[in-house]
Amino acid sequence: MQSALKILRLDIGLPLDGGGTLSPLEIGYETWGALNAAKTNAILICHALTGDQFVASPNPVTGQPAWWDNLVGPGKIIDTDRYFVICSNVLGGCMGTSGPASIGPNGTPYGLDFPVITIADMVRAQAALIDHLGIDRLFAVIGGSMGGMQVLEWIASRPDRVGAAMPIASAARHSAQNIAFHEVGRQAVMADPDWQNGAYQLAGTKPVKGLAVARMAAHITYLSDAALHRKFGRRLQNRDELTFGFDADFQIESYLRYQGSRFVDRFDANSYLYITRAMDYFDLAAGFNGRLSDAFTAFKGRACVVSFSSDWHYPPADSRHITRAMIGAGVEVSAFEVETDKGHDAFLLDEPQFHQAMAGFLEASAADQGLQ
Amino acid sequence: MQSALKILRLDIGLPLDGGGTLSPLEIGYETWGALNAAKTNAILICHALTGDQFVASPNPVTGQPAWWDNLVGPGKIIDTDRYFVICSNVLGGCMGTSGPASIGPNGTPYGLDFPVITIADMVRAQAALIDHLGIDRLFAVIGGSMGGMQVLEWIASRPDRVGAAMPIASAARHSAQNIAFHEVGRQAVMADPDWQNGAYQLAGTKPVKGLAVARMAAHITYLSDAALHRKFGRRLQNRDELTFGFDADFQIESYLRYQGSRFVDRFDANSYLYITRAMDYFDLAAGFNGRLSDAFTAFKGRACVVSFSSDWHYPPADSRHITRAMIGAGVEVSAFEVETDKGHDAFLLDEPQFHQAMAGFLEASAADQGLQ
Repeated sequence: MQSALKILRLDIGLPLDGGGTLSPLEIGYETWGALNAAKTNAILICHALTGDQFVASPNPVTGQPAWWDNLVGPGKIIDTDRYFVICSNVLGGCMGTSGPASIGPNGTPYGLDFPVITIADMVRAQAALIDHLGIDRLFAVIGGSMGGMQVLEWIASRPDRVGAAMPIASAARHSAQNIAFHEVGRQAVMADPDWQNGAYQLAGTKPVKGLAVARMAAHITYLSDAALHRKFGRRLQNRDELTFGFDADFQIESYLRYQGSRFVDRFDANSYLYITRAMDYFDLAAGFNGRLSDAFTAFKGRACVVSFSSDWHYPPADSRHITRAMIGAGVEVSAFEVETDKGHDAFLLDEPQFHQAMAGFLEASAADQGLQ
Repeated sequence: MQSALKILRLDIGLPLDGGGTLSPLEIGYETWGALNAAKTNAILICHALTGDQFVASPNPVTGQPAWWDNLVGPGKIIDTDRYFVICSNVLGGCMGTSGPASIGPNGTPYGLDFPVITIADMVRAQAALIDHLGIDRLFAVIGGSMGGMQVLEWIASRPDRVGAAMPIASAARHSAQNIAFHEVGRQAVMADPDWQNGAYQLAGTKPVKGLAVARMAAHITYLSDAALHRKFGRRLQNRDELTFGFDADFQIESYLRYQGSRFVDRFDANSYLYITRAMDYFDLAAGFNGRLSDAFTAFKGRACVVSFSSDWHYPPADSRHITRAMIGAGVEVSAFEVETDKGHDAFLLDEPQFHQAMAGFLEASAADQGLQ
């Protein structure tokens, strides 16, 4: 299964925020387009919690289509005829990059022996990949949701290596409500006896029920109330009347169950624990004495902060918080709140306003950076 | 344990929306104050999903304080020196009223053999209690959240028996988002192997982990993002630094775990399934050809519809929907959206604006109904 994945193995010790190092480091990644001779046309795209590196071509392991097919490809807004596009599976993930399902030093899967990692650790691993590719400075770093956190971490920790930054539907720190939803998901996984205290691979089990419940709870946060109402309302699933039972009478129930069951086939339960934990730990200002604008003062590139009006998971206020701090730091930043009723998931969907903003931002950045 | 409860046993067959009848019917209930000679001073208070009949005195089984202690009692706004206050455990509950944990006809607990019930069935059981108490017409019916659904059902199905109606933080139908949250909770319970397909009492187990996860997920919906931020923010729990582990580092995690673990001691998991199902099924207009205002045309009393600005579980729009329909039906209705950042739970908390509105409404109703 893993044979279909492009994996970089680095025999380095990756230093981690929690202490110690991770060695070896494996990074599953994909690229599209060609790096120009001056190496000035590389765009790093950072994926979200349950995303992967297959931003512009189908995932050969899961068979799922490219997750940003509407934006990335030849002649598209992130034009792979013009840009060299890189996307890597995050540290802690389960699509080729080192994570809790990887084989640890004692020859068995890490499980809970995998170190708890942070968004900064994820970016450190990405930087190792960028080094390996011989790229000194990225034309742009772009990402939505957790991907946006990585964008922010890039310009805070490696300001000289980024020309343009676009955090989308993201936040500079996780809110109490978001931590709460993640904690529910983790408790659902851990409540499943098949989780086996994280050692389910050795036990030959899989906490599919717990992980499905976690996914169901998370999925609600990705959609707006209005979107749920429009898509499902109170419509019944393949029946004309209520059954007076606990089957999925309503379409929304059936949809959620389907989302849960489909997810467990493609995602590792421990990865879900580790990545949600990294997101909860994210608080960019904490490393700058609580002053978020100080995180951005060294960044001399252009930024565009995008949010979606009906996103209650990472609400526009979270993006405004980022924008204000960037303005305070003197960053050339534009901010755009897209009017939509589609909720957080809007960043993955066909949102013409958003796509137009992305196109304009890339054009302006190309002019900034003298890219033909 | 049950000996501390006042339980009415009626050897009637209670007809149910899902077909068939329930027999016998047991109703756990409490009263405060004295019924006047004309029997015109009775207020029925309807409790929410996980509430109980102990609205004005401590629950002797759980030891919890009265849940509306700030509103109901001698000299309080719902003055038990003036009104005869009644509150009963809902049908399907686990505090003395017939529910899935009750002993069924074959001498063992019902479990999933208990019939799936509706809000109308709950009201039918309440009406049987009111009949038993010899009360023809209630001075007022008041309730928040699911309690508000019961209020609406009372005036739709028994308009002549209610003088005044106050649905608080409620809805005339459950939204897709609310059904979705409930379905996550049910799936969490059912995913727990100790649930034993509902027969956990016979098996000697208890799905405590699944029910705790369900409660945690639900609890998030009871509070606003702002309230969570104010109460918890990103503050750590009894530690100065992140532990880089899966313990409850954040206060919000610790709080949710506590809410989950405390809940399982006092609530029956199957009751949780049945009552959430009844709420999901609630769609008052459905029984009136989809015209909500038709549900209210026969009601000649006074109504007051209360909502809370930061309640995203039963948002003010749900209450406006009720109010508009009442206006369309010619009901003398006032509506009040309380400005608060406390979210859905505000109806249980000290909200002076809300309490003032309640006092005014009761005064006006007393004048209407000629109550001294």
